[in-house]
Amino acid sequence: MVSFKQRDIISIRHFNKEELLYILDLAKEMERTTYTDTLKDKILASLFFEPSTRTRLSFESAMQRLGGMVIGFADSGITSVAKGESLRDSVKIIEGYCDIIVLRHYLEGSAQLAADVVNIPVINAGDGANQHPTQTFLDLYTIQKTKGALEGLTIGFLGDLKYGRTVHSLAYALAYFGTEMFFISPPGLRMPRDSIDELKDRKVKCYENESLSGISKKLDVIYCTRIQKERFADPVEFEKVRGVYRLSKAMLEELEIKKDLKILHPLPRVDEMDESLDKTNYAVYFHQARNGVPVRKAILSAVLGVIE
Amino acid sequence: MVSFKQRDIISIRHFNKEELLYILDLAKEMERTTYTDTLKDKILASLFFEPSTRTRLSFESAMQRLGGMVIGFADSGITSVAKGESLRDSVKIIEGYCDIIVLRHYLEGSAQLAADVVNIPVINAGDGANQHPTQTFLDLYTIQKTKGALEGLTIGFLGDLKYGRTVHSLAYALAYFGTEMFFISPPGLRMPRDSIDELKDRKVKCYENESLSGISKKLDVIYCTRIQKERFADPVEFEKVRGVYRLSKAMLEELEIKKDLKILHPLPRVDEMDESLDKTNYAVYFHQARNGVPVRKAILSAVLGVIE
Amino acid sequence: MVSFKQRDIISIRHFNKEELLYILDLAKEMERTTYTDTLKDKILASLFFEPSTRTRLSFESAMQRLGGMVIGFADSGITSVAKGESLRDSVKIIEGYCDIIVLRHYLEGSAQLAADVVNIPVINAGDGANQHPTQTFLDLYTIQKTKGALEGLTIGFLGDLKYGRTVHSLAYALAYFGTEMFFISPPGLRMPRDSIDELKDRKVKCYENESLSGISKKLDVIYCTRIQKERFADPVEFEKVRGVYRLSKAMLEELEIKKDLKILHPLPRVDEMDESLDKTNYAVYFHQARNGVPVRKAILSAVLGVIE
Repeated sequence: MVSFKQRDIISIRHFNKEELLYILDLAKEMERTTYTDTLKDKILASLFFEPSTRTRLSFESAMQRLGGMVIGFADSGITSVAKGESLRDSVKIIEGYCDIIVLRHYLEGSAQLAADVVNIPVINAGDGANQHPTQTFLDLYTIQKTKGALEGLTIGFLGDLKYGRTVHSLAYALAYFGTEMFFISPPGLRMPRDSIDELKDRKVKCYENESLSGISKKLDVIYCTRIQKERFADPVEFEKVRGVYRLSKAMLEELEIKKDLKILHPLPRVDEMDESLDKTNYAVYFHQARNGVPVRKAILSAVLGVIE
Repeated sequence: MVSFKQRDIISIRHFNKEELLYILDLAKEMERTTYTDTLKDKILASLFFEPSTRTRLSFESAMQRLGGMVIGFADSGITSVAKGESLRDSVKIIEGYCDIIVLRHYLEGSAQLAADVVNIPVINAGDGANQHPTQTFLDLYTIQKTKGALEGLTIGFLGDLKYGRTVHSLAYALAYFGTEMFFISPPGLRMPRDSIDELKDRKVKCYENESLSGISKKLDVIYCTRIQKERFADPVEFEKVRGVYRLSKAMLEELEIKKDLKILHPLPRVDEMDESLDKTNYAVYFHQARNGVPVRKAILSAVLGVIE
Repeated sequence: MVSFKQRDIISIRHFNKEELLYILDLAKEMERTTYTDTLKDKILASLFFEPSTRTRLSFESAMQRLGGMVIGFADSGITSVAKGESLRDSVKIIEGYCDIIVLRHYLEGSAQLAADVVNIPVINAGDGANQHPTQTFLDLYTIQKTKGALEGLTIGFLGDLKYGRTVHSLAYALAYFGTEMFFISPPGLRMPRDSIDELKDRKVKCYENESLSGISKKLDVIYCTRIQKERFADPVEFEKVRGVYRLSKAMLEELEIKKDLKILHPLPRVDEMDESLDKTNYAVYFHQARNGVPVRKAILSAVLGVIE
């Protein structure tokens, strides 16, 4: 039987298919109400050692829409960390002030460390370039919701597949659902070898490409990510690549694509998706961001044991 | 029939006399209770891209005194803006986390832009040097409350009338109430020509002066603003002007004034009003600041449609 | 009869023995419930002009666990102070938005100044190097809770006793309870002369030492504080001292100590207590930090007059 009671949410890899679906089902249920007081005696400590808008605000919204309370900080500059306190000590102390911790921290492994130290549940809201599991839950939820089901889809991951942690986690999770995957990136930003190998071990049909041409018509979903200039030694290389991976309405009109293609993006975007896309039916990235609320309501409810 | 349901509050110019009075009446009613749970399932996103104490805290107090919840930030440094996200994208995403947005942003027009982009109400809490309509509502409320009525008063605006956005908006609003207006400023900081012209078109009796002497006895209200050193190319000019426009108890005792004169100031003050004024019956600026709560409770209630 | 209704909490020196015990009793009672709505119509303004994790978050947790609401800031950079507003003006304005103020400010005397200016209760959450009375309440509560009673204990204060404000306040309060006190510090960081004199006037048995050896076996409690490098003109002096005052499990095993010795520390620590101590039965500093919640719940309840 699936139970999330008092569990830590550190990495999407800790959950099997049944557990993933359990949270998605619960998220769907959460959309039915805008407010309940099921968590009215519970406090969430929202500890953001790095800036965030979407993740922090949607967690705080989710907690409050369940009747719960929030304490925390949005900036490590205002904490005892400035006085040299270790993360271990900080979370051990804060544990006494709350019922659950949501942690974003710039160091890989920080969320696991916190979870090892405290006796209340810890949710990883991003530990450096490593894991951000609630993002993957909301990506899955968005795909399921906009495509009707998760099984048997063909998905193209586009952009920086080397450093994009959301891509690695989402590909891992989608492997449970018979997804066919195209990894479309510049040569220097390809999906890591071991990720590809692991997917193949799990019998995923996956392919690597350098552009959308030729394969665009097969895709049910494009999951777009930002290509950062800093990744290129040579700015000329960046400029060459940039145009190819910048989605726009005009570009989609030139390509052969499915009518019900959906485009996701973890946001924030800078200029890798043109605003001309926003009003097309392809664009679901704003819905995706908003799905953070029902998905995080589901996770908070499940972990705090309100939902059986 | 007046209705504020789901309306944006961007500029005081969007409201007619009846609408202004509607909010003032509602504010009065709001003072009767310190707490209700009328907005208990509503979330306010308090988005301050610039520092503020009074406006932010009084909005957050108002929302919570109505039973509502608050998410947000007090400093754009901790948001995705730091990652290059556009205001348009930020508000589109945050729209999914809340029921109403209160926005302070350093760019003129930002609040209107946000209102155009989202489907929930947006309240402008200051867009650069442009508009700050809830400040005008609370200025009007303070005058009405301390003078008994708004009709037929004589008001002197004192200080920097060129850059003081609160002055422009308040003068605009008071023009509905047969107010006689004196604009008292150094030559370089006079009320903008087009504001004066507009007031005259609306049949307002208005006059420009360089000091309070001679006219002080006519005034029911002085609305004082700060003169900023940065406005003067020559520091000597600033020093000359400074003394003349710095209100103190001693200065008022030398002038001929009405016994029931009331002095308002949008605050914060630095040294343009001496602390000797604070305990006189003239000083109402602290009450004015506190009126932010009932006025903002009224606006939130009206816009969120709790009040018919 | 003891009453805290509407009183300011500025310095531990303002409370007699009966009043101290009243709050400790109330804190004990507060531990019985995790949530009540006794303060559901009250707003706490949490004004932190200096960074803090423990104090701010535990106050905000305490207020919310009593059903109350919170507004405020965690960083003076985002307030009108940045525009030159005086503390006096800030608190006079904020008074209108809330029912009680918790203030941390870098200037000594700031909390008293605030209390003089406003008509609602002010709780001092640290005014520079001066007072931090709720810390002393939670120190007392921790000692009482872990030792069973406050009367007749022997306590060693260890480390920087010159600048450690928590030490001065706690020693003052413990003088009511027949405590025997050892002050163990490097020569340059001894307990101030006038504190010692005052304790002796109050018939406290107190002694000064330079190390734990010889006296460790007498101690029921060690109250440890950090020795800051900046206090030493000569870094070599600091290094010498550092080792002697750095507690570790190994060090305690070499000393003769009571089996039920308890070690407190106001936290944050940097390296003055080794992590090897954390899992011993001696270590109660994390419990101490967490006791901030029931103690602050007690103070908020008593001051806001919910408790008779």
